Amino acid sequence: MDWRLNDRAVRHAANLSELAGDLRIVPHDVAGARVYDFGIQAAGGLSAGLKLAQICMSGLAEISFATCDLGGVNWPSIQVISDHPLAACLFSQYAGWQIGVEKYFAMGSGPMRAASGRETVFQKFQYRETPAAVVGVLEGRKLPTPAVLAFLADKTGVSAENTTLLIAPTASQAGNVQVVARVVETALHKLFELGFDMQRIVSAFGTAPLSPVAKDDLTGIGRTNDAILYGGRVTLWVRGDDASLAEIGPQVPANASASYGRPFLEIFEAAGRDFYKIDPHLFSPAEIVFQNLDSGKAQTFGQINPSVLKQSFGI
Amino acid sequence: MDWRLNDRAVRHAANLSELAGDLRIVPHDVAGARVYDFGIQAAGGLSAGLKLAQICMSGLAEISFATCDLGGVNWPSIQVISDHPLAACLFSQYAGWQIGVEKYFAMGSGPMRAASGRETVFQKFQYRETPAAVVGVLEGRKLPTPAVLAFLADKTGVSAENTTLLIAPTASQAGNVQVVARVVETALHKLFELGFDMQRIVSAFGTAPLSPVAKDDLTGIGRTNDAILYGGRVTLWVRGDDASLAEIGPQVPANASASYGRPFLEIFEAAGRDFYKIDPHLFSPAEIVFQNLDSGKAQTFGQINPSVLKQSFGI
Amino acid sequence: MDWRLNDRAVRHAANLSELAGDLRIVPHDVAGARVYDFGIQAAGGLSAGLKLAQICMSGLAEISFATCDLGGVNWPSIQVISDHPLAACLFSQYAGWQIGVEKYFAMGSGPMRAASGRETVFQKFQYRETPAAVVGVLEGRKLPTPAVLAFLADKTGVSAENTTLLIAPTASQAGNVQVVARVVETALHKLFELGFDMQRIVSAFGTAPLSPVAKDDLTGIGRTNDAILYGGRVTLWVRGDDASLAEIGPQVPANASASYGRPFLEIFEAAGRDFYKIDPHLFSPAEIVFQNLDSGKAQTFGQINPSVLKQSFGI
Repeated sequence: MDWRLNDRAVRHAANLSELAGDLRIVPHDVAGARVYDFGIQAAGGLSAGLKLAQICMSGLAEISFATCDLGGVNWPSIQVISDHPLAACLFSQYAGWQIGVEKYFAMGSGPMRAASGRETVFQKFQYRETPAAVVGVLEGRKLPTPAVLAFLADKTGVSAENTTLLIAPTASQAGNVQVVARVVETALHKLFELGFDMQRIVSAFGTAPLSPVAKDDLTGIGRTNDAILYGGRVTLWVRGDDASLAEIGPQVPANASASYGRPFLEIFEAAGRDFYKIDPHLFSPAEIVFQNLDSGKAQTFGQINPSVLKQSFGI
Repeated sequence: MDWRLNDRAVRHAANLSELAGDLRIVPHDVAGARVYDFGIQAAGGLSAGLKLAQICMSGLAEISFATCDLGGVNWPSIQVISDHPLAACLFSQYAGWQIGVEKYFAMGSGPMRAASGRETVFQKFQYRETPAAVVGVLEGRKLPTPAVLAFLADKTGVSAENTTLLIAPTASQAGNVQVVARVVETALHKLFELGFDMQRIVSAFGTAPLSPVAKDDLTGIGRTNDAILYGGRVTLWVRGDDASLAEIGPQVPANASASYGRPFLEIFEAAGRDFYKIDPHLFSPAEIVFQNLDSGKAQTFGQINPSVLKQSFGI
Repeated sequence: MDWRLNDRAVRHAANLSELAGDLRIVPHDVAGARVYDFGIQAAGGLSAGLKLAQICMSGLAEISFATCDLGGVNWPSIQVISDHPLAACLFSQYAGWQIGVEKYFAMGSGPMRAASGRETVFQKFQYRETPAAVVGVLEGRKLPTPAVLAFLADKTGVSAENTTLLIAPTASQAGNVQVVARVVETALHKLFELGFDMQRIVSAFGTAPLSPVAKDDLTGIGRTNDAILYGGRVTLWVRGDDASLAEIGPQVPANASASYGRPFLEIFEAAGRDFYKIDPHLFSPAEIVFQNLDSGKAQTFGQINPSVLKQSFGI
């Protein structure tokens, strides 16, 4: 199926300039590309975060604010619902593109990845887009340079003039919202890594507490990870047999990892500040519920951990 | 008052073909009528369920997803709000039309019922519509035949060419959402059956847990009923005196029925699989709150029953 | 910054006549002004209340219905989110204009206050609008007279022909929603009174239980105040140092007042039914959380009090 993810994201991004004041975002022209600052010099905000997350999912999810209970503490949360989780999360939202050009570095996500198509996920599902215009999201602290735009144009096959980028640091209001909104994506990516047949996944519903915005990006990465690892809850409607769900289920939630149980930053320190030494199976929501449309059976794995969340959030 | 329910539903159904891909629904032409499959061959989904429920209420309610607590378990839920509950629920959403034509059978709901006007509720309130076009919702597992459309045209006075039908089985994602979204309607219908003066009801707010989609329709009927009987909460803003509310109140929630306390399917089996032997007073939300606008007094009756819900949902 | 609050509110009010039937509001012409009755003779409702609150905040907030837990009781609640809390709350929503003309009296709020600009808050922030048209909200029980419109035109510099007023009594469905939706505004006003540097406030998220509509306005004032004082929760994203937050924090929630702990009406009676003898520091949400964007630190003050809420709500 051709999702036309970039076309969808272009439509959702069309009114960004008009909304710039209300969203507290700032448009820039970099080498002819429209680059929207959602949180570097711009203040951004909660609404900017929602918009950023929606575009990052190519508009294929409903994202809203709600509240949750953190062991007796009432706290703002994010709710994500999608009937197209594979396209919205893996083909679009997953931050699978490490963009390093000269001294520039940012994590790339959004549907522009599908126009590049070099990641394993696109090869695995043989999904590729050749759109007229692309939209990408950057998690980073510096505006992309003309060299970055030239690099992206080379990879996506779309000129800078037809490229739209949205950027926010992790430790910004919008960036923080956008990363916590990855609660469903994190579940899907974990399942993908475990070799689950992703075509079985039909719909998804996820919630996670909105972590306090950190003062620096590393702490931000810690808190947003903790929001998902210890506070994320995901329900997946799937098809197929129950036995395979019962088998894979215990491996899915974050507590399946030996590293589970401490705030992410402590785990990071214990790994010698080397992301690649952290168990990749740690990255998953706290709780996952499979609802099997074929059997009618619901299976729940994992549970939230308010204690670690409070420690991470400092509350 | 002329609610123009069918006109409203026509407007809400106008973009169904455009949204077909995103909602995973499939349009058909049956004898000139637009028939949308929301869950027979079509996959449907959560968004399709919301749209189905909104059209079934003629757009006179706000329906959304939220979460609820099922005795310590966090679970997706549906929230329904209406300032026109009588029109939205009884004149539109109530599945009061058993459509049997030759070997075809489906439960009919939506505003087309008001164009037929044969049910007790329409006679009681002397409400009848003579619209240019009608919209109906079918709970069933087979697409309607041309004979069904001819039957409906005869009853509604509107040709098949001007008829739009939306169909989903109970045991489908969209059907499941649509039936659980009947939480307010169930309260209103119970009150109607108890002889309550329905004109006293001003506004309504209801929630119910979203039951896991069942593997077959009978189990689906059981679970969606349980979602409401044991998990449904409805607040009604009413006018009039408090004494009559205090008197009728205890009779309203599901626990007023002697059959209350077991999953619906067990009750059904105990009744020899004969719906008509089940106490009709069982069909009501678990909890009802009357907020009297004239006296300022709030009265609460019944309570949710997480234990039976978990048993029914298999969690 | 020129928020153009009145221009925004005009846009949000543009479809009121079209929505009048659905919102159960009634338009009037008073001396050429459009005056919408949201709850005097008109029934109003939940949706009317949301619309009233949104316009009262000049559209600079997202307001929705949710549910909350009142010490074991599940209850409808209101959720308010804004990235522009100073403009939405203090420059627009705050009921800072006591409008008394001849025998007429109502509390005035909404952006028309910014066109008058006589209140302390406008002088303090040197904010003033000179719009082509103004929008105001009245909390009162009588439609404004031509003399009231002449008075307003004199103060705002905008003719009655270009004035739109929305009015609802406290003890009406829409008025009740609108006042409870002041949960964030109440926190901001308290902080303003405490001398806090309001420019530090970046975004806000607030919730409060929806009080039962009272039978008379005085009881309504009591319950809506209690909804906020004992049930309101506000998170503010702020900038600056933590020490000043730690210092002012304990003074912010309602429990900082010696009058705290009883339903508002009892406090009012104890003050000899004289509002001006009530400690002004009482008026604040039950709980406030500061999330400091500069330090990453979250600080929580106060807590909700379900016991007083149940007493006030009579549940």
